[in-house]
Parts: sequence; C-alpha cells; structure tokens
Amino acid sequence: MYSTEVELLLKSKKIKVGDRIRLEKSNLTYDGILMPRIELGDPSVISIKLDNGYNIGIKFDKNVKIRFLDKGKPIRFKPAETSVRKDPSKQTISILGCGGTIASRVEYTTGAVFPAFSPDDLLLSFPSLRNIANIKGKKLFELFSEDMTTEHWQIIARNVEKEVKSGIDGVILMHGTDTMHYTSAALSFMLQSLPVPVVLVGAQRSSDRGSSDNLVNLTCSTVAATSDIAEVSVCMHGSTGDEFCYLHQGTKVRKLHTSRRDAFQSVNVLPFAKILYPENKIEYLRTDYNKRDKKTLKLDDKINSSVGLIYTYPGIKPEFIDSLSKFFEGIVIAGTGLGHVPTTPFSDKLTRSVLPSLKNLINSGIPVVMAPQTIFGRLDMNIYTSGRLLNEIGVIGNQCDWLPETALVKLMWTLGHTKDMKKIREMMLTNVAGEIGNRTVIG
Amino acid sequence: MYSTEVELLLKSKKIKVGDRIRLEKSNLTYDGILMPRIELGDPSVISIKLDNGYNIGIKFDKNVKIRFLDKGKPIRFKPAETSVRKDPSKQTISILGCGGTIASRVEYTTGAVFPAFSPDDLLLSFPSLRNIANIKGKKLFELFSEDMTTEHWQIIARNVEKEVKSGIDGVILMHGTDTMHYTSAALSFMLQSLPVPVVLVGAQRSSDRGSSDNLVNLTCSTVAATSDIAEVSVCMHGSTGDEFCYLHQGTKVRKLHTSRRDAFQSVNVLPFAKILYPENKIEYLRTDYNKRDKKTLKLDDKINSSVGLIYTYPGIKPEFIDSLSKFFEGIVIAGTGLGHVPTTPFSDKLTRSVLPSLKNLINSGIPVVMAPQTIFGRLDMNIYTSGRLLNEIGVIGNQCDWLPETALVKLMWTLGHTKDMKKIREMMLTNVAGEIGNRTVIG
Repeated sequence: MYSTEVELLLKSKKIKVGDRIRLEKSNLTYDGILMPRIELGDPSVISIKLDNGYNIGIKFDKNVKIRFLDKGKPIRFKPAETSVRKDPSKQTISILGCGGTIASRVEYTTGAVFPAFSPDDLLLSFPSLRNIANIKGKKLFELFSEDMTTEHWQIIARNVEKEVKSGIDGVILMHGTDTMHYTSAALSFMLQSLPVPVVLVGAQRSSDRGSSDNLVNLTCSTVAATSDIAEVSVCMHGSTGDEFCYLHQGTKVRKLHTSRRDAFQSVNVLPFAKILYPENKIEYLRTDYNKRDKKTLKLDDKINSSVGLIYTYPGIKPEFIDSLSKFFEGIVIAGTGLGHVPTTPFSDKLTRSVLPSLKNLINSGIPVVMAPQTIFGRLDMNIYTSGRLLNEIGVIGNQCDWLPETALVKLMWTLGHTKDMKKIREMMLTNVAGEIGNRTVIG
Repeated sequence: MYSTEVELLLKSKKIKVGDRIRLEKSNLTYDGILMPRIELGDPSVISIKLDNGYNIGIKFDKNVKIRFLDKGKPIRFKPAETSVRKDPSKQTISILGCGGTIASRVEYTTGAVFPAFSPDDLLLSFPSLRNIANIKGKKLFELFSEDMTTEHWQIIARNVEKEVKSGIDGVILMHGTDTMHYTSAALSFMLQSLPVPVVLVGAQRSSDRGSSDNLVNLTCSTVAATSDIAEVSVCMHGSTGDEFCYLHQGTKVRKLHTSRRDAFQSVNVLPFAKILYPENKIEYLRTDYNKRDKKTLKLDDKINSSVGLIYTYPGIKPEFIDSLSKFFEGIVIAGTGLGHVPTTPFSDKLTRSVLPSLKNLINSGIPVVMAPQTIFGRLDMNIYTSGRLLNEIGVIGNQCDWLPETALVKLMWTLGHTKDMKKIREMMLTNVAGEIGNRTVIG
C-alpha cells in the first residue's frame, strides 16, 4: 500500500496498480505502468514502469501531477511453491538479501518487479539452482548499494556468522553492484578464519530486462558457494557473453565499468576461479586460497567510519588538506604514479606542497595512508623524491599494491581497533586478507 | 654548484663529484655516487646515484651526515655536437621540455643523469630521430609532474602557441607521467583549432635503466608529430614489449598502472593510432580526428584552479561535503556506478544522504559535476533513483562518459570563463575536445 495521501488520490482518479498513467513533476513527464509500492520503500514514492523497461520512483508531493492514460490488465500473482524437498546428497547454501537489482523477479502481467527473497520465491525464479544445492534464503535489508554504510557491513557480517554457526555449507550475499567491492573488502577483514565460502553476487542489468545477468551470476555464485574456496569473494560475469563468471578475491576486485556485465575485474591478482555456465564447472586459476574445513569463524567487526578518501591532483590546496582533521580520524590519499603528491623538492615557485599539511595531520595523531590512483600496480615510494619525503614523515603504504577502496576499508577497520600510531602502521602493513599482494603473483 | 654550505662541507671532506659516499639521515643510510647538482634544483639537495641505478636527492641540514667511501673515476663530459644540418625535405619538430625522467641522458663515467634538452644534446642521445624530422628543442621547466599546477599548463600552452606561430610542423612535449593525462586534457581545451600535432611523451622507466622506454616513446612521438593528426595526444608504449606505441586522445587517456610501460590507456574510445617501432609506421585506428591544415590556432588558456575532485564511498559525511564551499568554486564528484551518491530514497535509518549538502552547494553558486569512479563507461542518471535525484537538483554530467580527471580539468577551464550557472552547464555539456564520447564509437 502507498501512503494514505497517495492511495486517496489514486482512488479519486480511479487509478489501479497496472494502469498506464502519466506523472508530471517540475517540467518532466513520465508515462508508464503504475506498480505496487516497493516493499520497505518510502510509501509516498510512486513506482512506474517506463516504456524502456526501467522502473522509476517519483516521490509524491503537491507538485506531482498524476493522470490516468489507459486501463491495465488484471494482475495475477503466481502462487509461491510452498514446500521444497531438501536433497540430503547436496550441500545447503544460505542466500542473504542485501538489496540491489539482482534480488528481484518480474510479474509479467504488469511488468512490476518484486523482491523474491523467500527460498520458495527464489527457486520459483531460478529452479535450476536446485540442481546445485539446497537453498535457504533471508532478506537482511533492501537498499541501493550506494546507500550502504559501515553499519550495514556489520549487519551482514553478523548474519553471516549466524548462518555459519548454524552449520550452513556456504553463504551467498545478493548485493547492489555500486559498492559491492567496498563490502567484499570489509567482510574480508571482519570474517576471519572462514570455514566456508562467502560469495557476493549482483547484477548489472535489472531482472526485468532480457539482457539481465542475474541467472548466470546467481548460478555461478551457487557453484562457488559449494566449492572449497573458503574466502570472501565476488562472483560476476567474466565477459560480455553468458559463458562464464569470474570469482574474484574480496580485497582485490573493483567495479571498472558503469554498465558492462563484466564490470568487475581483479586488480593485481588473478581471480580465484572461472565458473563455466551452463556447465556449472569450476576452473581454478589459483591455489593460494583458504580451503573449506572445520575451523571456527572469528567475527571481528569493529570499525570506525571516520576515514576520508582524498584524491590528489594538480592544484590541490594545502588548506583543504588541513581542514580534513575536522572530519576524519584517518586519511587515505589516492596519490599519483608510484605514490606521490605535490612536494616541491625543487622549489618551483608555482607549486604548493601539501607535505607540511600531511605532516601536521600525522603529528596530530591522524594516520595518512597512500594508495595508487592509477588503480593497477604497486606503490614504490623509494624511487622519487616525493615518495621518499612522504616515507620520511610517516605516510603508510610503501610497496603496497592495494586498491584505494580496500585501503580505505582497511583503515576504517584498523581504526576500529586502535588509535595508537605504531599499532595502526603495524596492522595496516600486515597482510590480513590478501589485500597486499605477493610480488610474484602477477607482473 | 651546490649551496655554499654543502660545497664547503664536501671540500673539507675532500669529496668530489663522482666519489662514492654515504649519506645518513634519521636512521636511514644511502650509499652511492655523488652527482652534480640537478640544474634548477634546490642547491642544498645532495644528489647521489644508488647501487640500484636510481638517483635520489637528500636535502642537506644539520641532521645529514656525509662520509667518504671511495674515490670515483674522473668525469669526462661528451662534447655536444654543435651544428646539425637541417634537411629541407623533412618536417621540423619542436621538442619542449617540461621535466620528467624522459628528458635525461646518462653520463656513463659517473652514471649521473643529465637533462638533455638542447637539440644537439637530444640528437646526441637519440641520433635516429634525425631520420624522421629536423628537431629543435627548448626547456620550459624541470619538474616532477606531481608538482605540476594549472599555471604550468598555461606556460606550456603559451609556448606551444609561440612554436606554432613560428611555423613549426609539430610539437612534442616531454613530460612526467604522473599527471600527463591532466595536462593533455588541459591543453586539449586550451589549444583550439590546432593546425599541427601536439604530442605529449614520457617514460615510465628512467633513462639510466636498461629497460627505459624513452627511445621508443620519443621515436614514436616524432612520427606522430609529423603525422596529419592535429590533435593534443599522448604517445606511450602500447605493450610491455618495444614493438609499438599508442597515440591516445588527450581527453580520453589515463595512467592506469604505477609502473608498467604500457600504463597509459585510452578510456571509452580507441587510440587515434598505433605507431610501429622500429618501422616508424603509423597505423590509423580512427578517422574522426582534426586533420593538419592551415587554420589558425586559437589559444584559450583561462583557467580557475579552485575545483575539488571528491570521491564518494560508504560512510561519506554530509558535513564534509558542506565544508567544500570554503575551498572550491566547483566540485567534481567521482560517484559510484552510473553516477550515484548516498541519497536514502528508501529512508534507511543508517544512511546519511549527501543530497541536501550537494543541493546547498549548487544553490550557493558552486557547480557540481558527476564523473564515474568506475573510470570506464558512461554515466546514466535516469535509471536509478539516486541518479534522478541528482539530476533534479542540477548536478551536471548525465549521459557523459568523461574521465574524472578530464571532468575536473574541464570544470577548471569552464570556471575560468564564466560564473553563470546556466553558462557553466552549457559549456560543460558541449563537447569541446572529444571529452564526451560519441555513443557509437565503442561498446
């Protein structure tokens, strides 16, 4: 049900869910089919399915005009299958819903997208998953992943722990793709000594589009969750086709395209594995992963979200760097090249060094961590003067090949444990979850 | 000559350039060969060549200890060839030096690296360039490119104009690689209606290492500068081998690896061309470039450096976004996915929307521009609610496929021309130098 205000307006205009309507708001006009209210969503946001197949929501206020255009066909909800028999010869996997477009299925009468989180609903949408494993399902929250916070990471981590303690054979997390790599990094630090696989999966195209990647990704992630790779990983399309997914290491993966189905890429390492579809076969690309076994999961979910991720660029202002101490207890600098910022060692009159500002931050107890804005490659702060000066003042990260996003999450996690600068440096430079790659792994 | 203080100390210890010495500073020890002072550099920075082949500089103060280790061989400077005959059948190219490791050659007696910017020095280092074109050279400044500012971009643009007005057939800019793509974007906007090629070139490995890429890159850039591609472009290794370089469009190129020789990649477009080495042959990959002709260069170098490039991530603080108005006259947001920030359309209690903060910035006359932190792909702010809300408050960039760095530089350039919000939007969304790619060019 929408809000009373919206429901009354719809009633007065004799508009029903499934009807074709026009919404007008500040010179913009949207024609489409009125959809049911999105579960857990703001009840005053009116959802319509546009002709291009996308669903949008318009928040209702006095500036929004609604007009009836055409009568829709009556909606028939498919009955959910109520009892699915458990196959004792198969492993049991738990799918936890954290939002995103993957966790949805289409009601074809109206084209409306419904969350499909009960195990029965899931198997109704994707019955072929039953061939791989017994499936349990639970919705944690429904959220676009750009709205995710460090608290959501904790909720996920604690629920994974609960599932693992209940004896589950693997966990799949359905997640929006925008910040999936931040979450996978956070869980990699929070879930230590994992006995089973924890696989994040999402979709780049919503399930109501023919080109959706949700079935392939979900199938491959189920294969991954039943494998012996007891790591936090991300399972997404490996190519623009539908032939395979890659299983990426949680601390070494990044979304590298706004829209392509193979947007996620492993950075500075190979993926753990390639999972063939529809063969459901796993091809291992690495052997250096934590294997499935009887060990006890250690939950370590302390985190401090007060960390800034700051890009450096030509013309960056020292006074802007100075101001960061007001907002953050730790800073990650996405530096240029091998790990550089403007330092003016050769006294160019035009350049404004940010070195004194960074030094002040460090001296006031705010750790400064370097990460490469090139994304790929390893920092080396021994080669050029800027890097050496940053080393001298205590910037952390020399010789690390971590992603800016992973360095950010690791500093948040580290600051959840200690405020002691020596300890912070020690924790940051100790490899916890493969975030600092071995030199020999890849060129 | 070093500073008087340094020279006196060296004299007192009977240390000469070329001698092997030990420098000690704050628990760090460096052994290497004392090199001559870096031209234009801080005279109190002592340069030594380490055993690993790298040169470093240590700023001298009372905490620096110097110890004589071993006598060096006497230095013999090779005489520069004084007259190079101009070949009237060949084009004449001007090489402007802007710093970086490419613009150097090794004096093998000491291993010292010298700037080699006079045309004669250049041809002495790379005599094969003469087979391609007549070469003129000039040093503009000597700078690590992480220290580059918007004023340096203007100095370069004005000097290119001077060369073009003098009738030169092409310009090569030797430049550090850290921020080469920021400079190439800036010059693409500043140098309009180009009659000849302007090619930026750098090296990922310093010239005193066997693996240096300077000869191949410089040779290929000379081929590019004599071609009919009258665009601002970047010429760098196209693979880890030495077989070819790519010629990248100045607004669509990015350093994507800290150290690899093929670190520079075209994003969302093909490179203009592939240049084969040592064949010096150009293979055109595109036809949509500005061709060499008799038109008059229009210099448009107005710029406003007060622009912030701000990453969004889980947990970003609204009050941090609020504070940006103190430092910047324009903001580029590197958003997640298709162009998103936390907006909490579904009223999650944990999420803190930054939408009101962005709205306040815009209402106070500070333009906010969106760019994708995924690097690759095109923004689409019509699909999800976060994008639509950002559109509604006037965030600029929907449907653009620009790089965050290029969007930053374009906003700096635009704010050099106008403070009028309507005009800013219009200029930003008008394609000036290919920064907004055609939908049909690449997947």
